[in-house]
Formats: sequence, structure tokens, C-alpha cells
Amino acid sequence: MDNLYAARIGALREMMRAHGWDAVLFTGSDPHDSEYPAERWMTVRWFTGFTGEAGDLVVTPDHAGLWTDTRYFIQAVRQLAGTGVELHKTRVPEQVLIPEWLADRADEDEFVLALDGLCVSAGTVEEIRAAFMERGRVCRVVSVPDLSGVLWTARPAVPQTPVFTADPGETRTERLSRVRTFLREQGCTRLLLTTLDDIAWTLNVRASDIEYNPLVISYLLVGLDDAQWFVLRQSEEDPQTRSALDAVSADGVDLRDYADIELALGECRGEVAVDGNRLSYHLREVLLEAGATLHDLPSPTALWKAVKNATEVEGMRRCQLADGIAMERFLYWLERSLQQDRRVSEWDAALQLGRYRAEDPDYLYDSFETISAWGPGAALPHYSTPRTGAPLLEPRGLYLCDSGGQYRCGTTDITRTVPLGACSELEREDYTLVLKGHIDLAKAVFPEGTPGCRLDALARAPLWAHYRNFGHGTGHGVGWFLGVHEGPQDIRQNLNPQALLPGMVVSDEPGIYREGLYGVRHENLLLCREAGCNDFGAWLRFETLTLCHYDTSILVTELLDRDEVIWLNEYNRRVFETLAPLLPAEVAAWLEEKTQPVVL
Amino acid sequence: MDNLYAARIGALREMMRAHGWDAVLFTGSDPHDSEYPAERWMTVRWFTGFTGEAGDLVVTPDHAGLWTDTRYFIQAVRQLAGTGVELHKTRVPEQVLIPEWLADRADEDEFVLALDGLCVSAGTVEEIRAAFMERGRVCRVVSVPDLSGVLWTARPAVPQTPVFTADPGETRTERLSRVRTFLREQGCTRLLLTTLDDIAWTLNVRASDIEYNPLVISYLLVGLDDAQWFVLRQSEEDPQTRSALDAVSADGVDLRDYADIELALGECRGEVAVDGNRLSYHLREVLLEAGATLHDLPSPTALWKAVKNATEVEGMRRCQLADGIAMERFLYWLERSLQQDRRVSEWDAALQLGRYRAEDPDYLYDSFETISAWGPGAALPHYSTPRTGAPLLEPRGLYLCDSGGQYRCGTTDITRTVPLGACSELEREDYTLVLKGHIDLAKAVFPEGTPGCRLDALARAPLWAHYRNFGHGTGHGVGWFLGVHEGPQDIRQNLNPQALLPGMVVSDEPGIYREGLYGVRHENLLLCREAGCNDFGAWLRFETLTLCHYDTSILVTELLDRDEVIWLNEYNRRVFETLAPLLPAEVAAWLEEKTQPVVL
Repeated sequence: MDNLYAARIGALREMMRAHGWDAVLFTGSDPHDSEYPAERWMTVRWFTGFTGEAGDLVVTPDHAGLWTDTRYFIQAVRQLAGTGVELHKTRVPEQVLIPEWLADRADEDEFVLALDGLCVSAGTVEEIRAAFMERGRVCRVVSVPDLSGVLWTARPAVPQTPVFTADPGETRTERLSRVRTFLREQGCTRLLLTTLDDIAWTLNVRASDIEYNPLVISYLLVGLDDAQWFVLRQSEEDPQTRSALDAVSADGVDLRDYADIELALGECRGEVAVDGNRLSYHLREVLLEAGATLHDLPSPTALWKAVKNATEVEGMRRCQLADGIAMERFLYWLERSLQQDRRVSEWDAALQLGRYRAEDPDYLYDSFETISAWGPGAALPHYSTPRTGAPLLEPRGLYLCDSGGQYRCGTTDITRTVPLGACSELEREDYTLVLKGHIDLAKAVFPEGTPGCRLDALARAPLWAHYRNFGHGTGHGVGWFLGVHEGPQDIRQNLNPQALLPGMVVSDEPGIYREGLYGVRHENLLLCREAGCNDFGAWLRFETLTLCHYDTSILVTELLDRDEVIWLNEYNRRVFETLAPLLPAEVAAWLEEKTQPVVL
Repeated sequence: MDNLYAARIGALREMMRAHGWDAVLFTGSDPHDSEYPAERWMTVRWFTGFTGEAGDLVVTPDHAGLWTDTRYFIQAVRQLAGTGVELHKTRVPEQVLIPEWLADRADEDEFVLALDGLCVSAGTVEEIRAAFMERGRVCRVVSVPDLSGVLWTARPAVPQTPVFTADPGETRTERLSRVRTFLREQGCTRLLLTTLDDIAWTLNVRASDIEYNPLVISYLLVGLDDAQWFVLRQSEEDPQTRSALDAVSADGVDLRDYADIELALGECRGEVAVDGNRLSYHLREVLLEAGATLHDLPSPTALWKAVKNATEVEGMRRCQLADGIAMERFLYWLERSLQQDRRVSEWDAALQLGRYRAEDPDYLYDSFETISAWGPGAALPHYSTPRTGAPLLEPRGLYLCDSGGQYRCGTTDITRTVPLGACSELEREDYTLVLKGHIDLAKAVFPEGTPGCRLDALARAPLWAHYRNFGHGTGHGVGWFLGVHEGPQDIRQNLNPQALLPGMVVSDEPGIYREGLYGVRHENLLLCREAGCNDFGAWLRFETLTLCHYDTSILVTELLDRDEVIWLNEYNRRVFETLAPLLPAEVAAWLEEKTQPVVL
């Protein structure tokens, strides 16, 4: 047992024996159901070495299994080799999920399952219990907060980065007042927020506690007349942080220590609104023991946050200018570098783009890890560009770059796929069909009340007509100086009933991926806007926010119809006219060439 | 109180007083949850005079209300005048549905609601009880089978028309065996079928008990080793009926009287599969009192029925030939009649089409009431052509005809909208955009597993792009020599997750309706078929079954793209080549002219 991870799992099994646990569950989650948990909560990685963004670990006396989805199968097989941990595939027809798998292992005795109740949602525990009940078995859940810390002695602390305030054109008093109106409407006395973007939105605070996300790790409890923010850094002397905390406090929000949340909830009676799908099992148990009556409701802030106000929309437009300048300078640099036979790796390219973005004073950091991929790498929609030994860009075929920035006035997310030299007919067709789907969605008009899932086929139909498709969603919501992925709206296969509302921002990113060869993805951000009323009802349409030209040199023009060519020419002209005055002269001249209209 | 309906409701109120009932509910349903109930069950019509296809009646001591949806508002206002019955609108944002309305009227005492438990589904009663419970009120339901019969002394009997057998290429023994496999898989001992199309499908029997639907009013109880069919006509001497009943009996199905269903269910123990959404409240109560354990599952026959086998598909194709011949002869006759200045009313036209259809030996009757509408009438998607005083067709504008037939080899449903003379620019645009949407859906390719709701936007996007839309679904399932509307699949706004499967037949019928002016609808039936597999997965596409040309004379060709024009020209050519040899010479010559290719 010389494998590091096998040894750690061995130590866990000894602990299980000592406590009489039949199984231990670790999820890839943190106490805030974050998309990107801080290192402290990367328990699955610590036990297994698996670095994928989604993975749950179950250990029993004779089995250790990692559950992850299609995106991570290849990576999991590689990373789990030698650890003794077996891969359980999810999102495949034959999947057996953790609740069923555990329940199938139970006999007539009570089955004891240990977990870190802070990092497992109440909903997950319900699903496990339901699976046991269906089989006539009984599962006792032992919740041990920070369970992994017993073995993981060098476990990192909760991150603490400087806190600052954001100005979205609506004060925190106004936002807290929205919450209180909601509480009164629902007959509740308190709302517990545990998700970090909802807290940041409500309090107009930001930090950098979570990679790529300007969030403060904390909890927020809003009552009808009071509010308590559970956050570290009470005694912080950094002036910016001090001033931000004071501003929150001045608006009637009591500052309490992060660790006090349990104490506070332990005294919580009355009608408490919680989002049961995202609340941790442990905090729910604390609330129930305290005698609170839980109202399981989606956090109202999720929808409020998704609908951008005028200031936020203006900010989203402004940061697209900065992003567009960086992207055009980057694409110019890329083309010149290759023309000059310079050696550029995928990683070099990502760094160069980051440098251009960093020149804008409003830019803080990227909104996710840049995917910079030439050829075969781009065939993986979730490719991770290696820092060392990254493949060199070759002067042929397609290069794909998916990146975004966190700016003080908004969040961006853009993908461009560009030819680095000669392309095959198939590459040209795929490039054109993906652009066709992208355009068809971007120029869609649709009735008020339409959910994104009903528009998804517009982006896919041009691909489907050629028997091509892509395995990810077409669009996700995007936050305002918050997470680059946010709900509740999306544009994808799943039948999510959330209507697209004026003020929502979504991505439009169809693709085609050819394993071992190349990938194509085109992505802009779209703002949903009102488009008038007539006898047929009220109408909505999109405004394209992103500003960066689409390369037209490898288009198979015959695959586009007239309206699509008109859209493309107008878009490229708008990009040129908007960005040219802000670009270095040689880049502007180059962009003028690049944006000459396509003739059908 | 000289109004006939007011008098009937007055008599009902006396009955309510005598029994101590606080309210009575009558639904527009029959004991079989039929789309078109026989006259015996048109209780709402008998009490109110309202003839719409959807309407529920609630009577309390001081209120009588009819609940119906948008389609019938105008008609309801007209027909309810003078009856004292008030219209309650459904499918509008401010709707208050019957469960909530009743519960809002309850005080602290027990509320007694009487209803005919045979004609109210178990699900409806659940909803009512839930609404009362939410408000802390109690509702006692008094179920009186055939409740209306006490006052409605001239109530018609249960219809009995000759029974005959159908040959769908699968024997009833095979179909019963499918049911028994299902029972074993689900751990059940019996399946109760109460819906008539499911029974007709399982037993390969047909009759004409329900208008437009070749169905036998009956119940079917299938056990692991036995089966009982509860049907009238036990002593029928008509040789066809006798032979059909004998054939069913010979396959091990016991024939019992229709009225015996209660007795039989009263002795039913064990695990019984029922479709709770469609089972009547009364029969469910009988089963529960008998001590049966109910497994609420959608009837497996619904999905089996929707997926046509090779014989059924071949039959669907064959009856389209007959239907196409009738339609082309009709359209020729229509054009000639108007050219010769003959007076033709909407009703005359419907009759003439019926005569042509009736010439086919396989034709039995129409699959629904023909909508024959010129100009303003066609603006109502559910227009009912008046038998007397029908508007005359004028030699200008658009004429819409939506019709279908029941043939021994299948069921048809087709809509054509044709110009009868000069058309406005708006008419031409609407005509073209609807055809564009129709074609875009018809030529769609899509991945296996796609539900119809994800394709709905393909038919609408061309209309949406011009800020136009239609208020009905795009497509419904169609039976094989059964109901012209059948589930579980459809293509509409609602997020119905049922995937389209190879062998399913759906309509493709977008439209545009201009109130007071005209309506456009184009409808063909589509067969879902496999279309191969590749690296991107398994693919499906549609085969257009319907054969009748689309008029191209008023197209605004610029609104169509190349692929759409290719589809249209190929379709019209196929219609001509297939039908011309079967048409009278002068009609064939005319059709050749009509199907000349459009040049883009």
C-alpha cells in the first residue's frame, strides 16, 4: 500500500472500524454548495487524487468508489490508477447512483453512513433515505462536521481575502427590503442564505475567497427587522475590508463570526425560509432541533440576481468593450506570431490573452480557467490547458479559446474558434454550421414566457440537419460581477421551465467536437430584452453583448441563408465600428480587413 | 324562470336542499374519460345549453358556474345568456379553478359536494380535497353514479353499435401477452383499462359508439391468466357483432355485461394497476373498498398504441392515398365551382369533400367534424361550420378546410388553406410563413430521445421572426384506426417529456389567425422514423404521410430559403406522381399545373 491515496483511504477505514460506520460519503461540495469549492473542501481530491470538478466518493470496508459524469471518465481512469478507487459512471443509461448503490449493500441491520453534514445537501440525504426505504432497509446518518480534518492534518483554513463593496445601482438596504417583502408574502420571519452569490448580491459585497468568483465565504440570516452576517475578518485591519464591513454594519446588519452560524441557528424559532436543495444537511438538522418550521422555497435572490437592472446592464455592456479590445489584440497577436513562425504553446497563448485583459483598470481576474486549445485538445469541451508541456500551436487547422473576466462592472465569457492556416472541408463545414446555429439563436424573437429549453433547438437544428450535435448545454446564465454560471435560467436540453425574462444574460455557445481531431465552439453573451407587443402578445429578443469579430475566411457561405449573412455582416461591422477607435492602429487596420462583409 | 336551463338548475337545487348538499359538480366527461362523450353523458349541455367540447358545471344554492377555456369564451357567453349560469374563464392568468373556488366557499362546517363519481376522475377529487385541506376545511364527497338521470328522465341509453374486429398485424393474444408481461414486471396481478381506445387497441375490436371514434363502450380487466371484457350486446344477433364477440371470447376473454364492472371490481383483491389520472373516482372507491392495492401507473397500452407496427404504418400510408384522392378532387371541384360562379357555402363544401371521401371502400366516417371556413370563420381555430345558413365562399381571400377520415387501415387528419381569388399582401405573407414553419418541422432531423416540445419552436421560429404566432399546439399524436388525437407524445409549448419514438405519428399544423379577417393553417401527418447512427448518436426524422399538394400561387417566395423550396417542390412532385394515376384525367392535368416547381 505504497500509494499515497490508498494509504489515506486505509486510514479512513480504520476510523470507520473504530466508530462502527458501514460507509463514509464525501462529496465534491463545500458548505455553500459552490461550483468551485476552495481547497479546504477538496476532500475527494485529497483522498483520491481526482481533480475533476464533479466527483463524490463512497468508502466501505471493501470498496472505494468515485462517482463522476461523462466529462471526466478519461481523466478519472488515469488519476485513479493505483489508488484502489473504482470509477462509477454517471449520466450514462446504466448508471447506479450513490443512494441506490448504498441501499443495495444494506442488509437487515441498521446501516450506518457517516458524512460531513456541512458538505452534503439535505436533499442528498433525503434521496439516500428514500432509496433505503424503497428496499425496506434503514439508514442511520452520522453527521460529523469537518470529518476529513481528523485525517487531513494539513487541511487549509477557510480562505480570507480582502472584502470590498460593489455598486450595482441598488443599495443593500433596498435589497434587504426586497427580502423582507418576500418574507411577509410567504408568512416567514427569516431567510437563511448559505449560497455565496446570493449573499454577495444581497449585501453588495465582494472578495476573492473562491477562485474565479468574487465571493465572500459567509452565511446570511435576514429577519423582518434585523440581519446577521456570519463572516471571518472581524478584526481585520486592511482599510478596504474594514470600510466594507463597516458599511454593511451601518446598514443594520450585525456582523458575527463565521463559526457562530450553528449557535445562531440553534436559537432560531418561527418560520424560516430555506432552499432545501442547496442547504446543508447539518444546518437543516440544527434548525429542526431548534424548533424552527422550515419553508422550503428557492431563494428569491436567485431570480432577482438573474434579472439585471439598468446599472448592471450598462456595466455588462461596458466590460464587453474591455473584453473585446483584449480579444482583438490577442487574435491579432496570435495571427502575427504564427506568420512570424514564433513558437507559441496553448499555455503561452492563454497567458498573452490574460495580459491584454489585465490592462483594463476594471479587470480583477478571470471568470474561469481559460481553455486555450489547438486541434485535438479543443475536441474536449472541458479541456484543461497544461501549464507545462502544453502543445504548440501549429499553423493549420482550428484553435479554440474560451475565456472570460471578472470586471468591477460585470462578468464576461467568450469563445472564439479561429483558423491558424489551411483547414479541411469538414473543419470549414463544422465551423460554418456552428456559427449558423449560434446566429439563429442570437437573432431569435420569441413570446414572453418562453423558457430557454424551448429555444435550444434553434441553435441545434442547423447541426442536426447534417447529423451533427454537441453534448453540452447551449447557454447558461451569467452573473453581474458574480459567477460566470448562474441560474435559474438556461438554454439546454433539460426541460427547465424558467422563462427567459428581460434583463437576463445567457450565453449562446453551440459547438461540434471531433475526437482526436479538433473542436469548434462560438460563444457570445446575449441580453434578453423586450421587443414590443402586438395582437399576438408581448415579444422578447436578444441583444448581443459580446464584441469580437467572427472570422469569415473559412466559411462555407452556401450553408448560410440570407438573414444569417445579414446578421453576421452587421455584427462584424458593429464590432469594428465600436472597437476600432479604442485599438492600436495596426490592430484596427487588421480588424477592418477581418470584418469586410461576406457576399452571398 | 321561463328559461329551460334555469328551470333544470332550479330542480337540481331542490334536490340539493332535500339531500343537504352544499354543491354539485358535473364534468364534461364520461366514465371512460373520452374526448367526445356520447350524448348520454352530455350532462353539462343538458343543464346549461353550452355545447363546447370542454366545460364543467358547479351549482351551489346561490351560484351556477360553467368553467371553460379560451377557445369557448364567445360561444359560452352567447349560449349561457338567460340561463343564470355564469362563465368562469380558465387558461387565463387570473383563473380560479373549481377546487379553489369550492374551497373558498367552505366555512368551518363540513362541506358536502355531490357528483357523479363515474364521470369525475379520481385525480379531480384529490385536487378538490387538497384545496380544502390547504385552507383547513373539510370536504365530504357524495358520489352518486348517474346522478343526472334523476332529473334527466329522457336521458339517452349507452350507445350500442355493431362491433367488428380490426387487423393491425398483431393478434389480441399477443397484445394480452404484452399486458401480462407488464403486470409481472410491475408485480401486479391485474390491469384495469377504462379508456376506450386502450381497450380497442388491446382487443382489436372496433364499433361506432362514440362519434368520429371507432370505439366500443366497455371496460377491460386483464389478469395474469384471465381477462374479462364488460360490454353490452351479449345477446346481439347481428352476425358481424356476434362473430367479433365470439372471436374475443375464443381468445380466452370472458364476456360480461357492461354494468357488471362494479360487481367484478368489488371482488378484486391483490395488486391492481390503474391509471389514476383517468380512472373514475367511483371505480377507484369500489376497488379500495374491495381491499385491492392500487398501483397508479400510466396504462402501458398508451405508449404501445402510439408506436405503430409495420402493418399499421403501411395502413397509414394506404389510407393517405384515399384521402389524397378525395382532397385533390375536392380542391379541383372547389376551384371549378368558383370559376363557374356557382353558389357554394362552407357547409356545401364540407359535404362535397365527405362525398369524395366516402367513395373509398375502406372509409367509414370522418375522424372529426370538418372545419370548412372562408375568411373570418377560419380565424377561429375551432370553428364549427353551421349546417344551416353557412357563409358562402367568396372568390377572393383564403378558404381553410381541416378534415380527416376513419379508414379500416388507418386514420387521417389534413388541413389545406387555399386562395379562392385575389389575396392581400398580409394573407400571402401569413400563408408563406405558416408553410415555412410547417416545412421546417417536417424536414427536421433530431437525436433519439428528443421530446416533441423541443421541436415545437422549429415550426414557430419563422412566425416569431415576424412577430406572429398561434395559440394552439403544433402537433398531436394520431391513432391507427382510432382517435385522431392520442398521446402520450405531442409537439407543443407544454414541456411534455415524452420522447418521439420511431413509429409514432404526429400532426404538423402551425397557423396564423387574424380575428375578423381570415385564418391560415397547413397540416400534414408525419411518421417518426429511424435515420441512422454516427459518432454523434442515433438519429430520427419524419416521413410525411399526407398526400395533397400545397398551392404555390400566392407564395412570397423570398420568405423561403433554398432548402424549404427544395422540400416544397419535391413534396408537390411526389404528390403528383403518386396520385395522378389514380385521379380522373382532368383532375390529374389540373394537378400537374398546380405542382409545377417554384423557382427561387
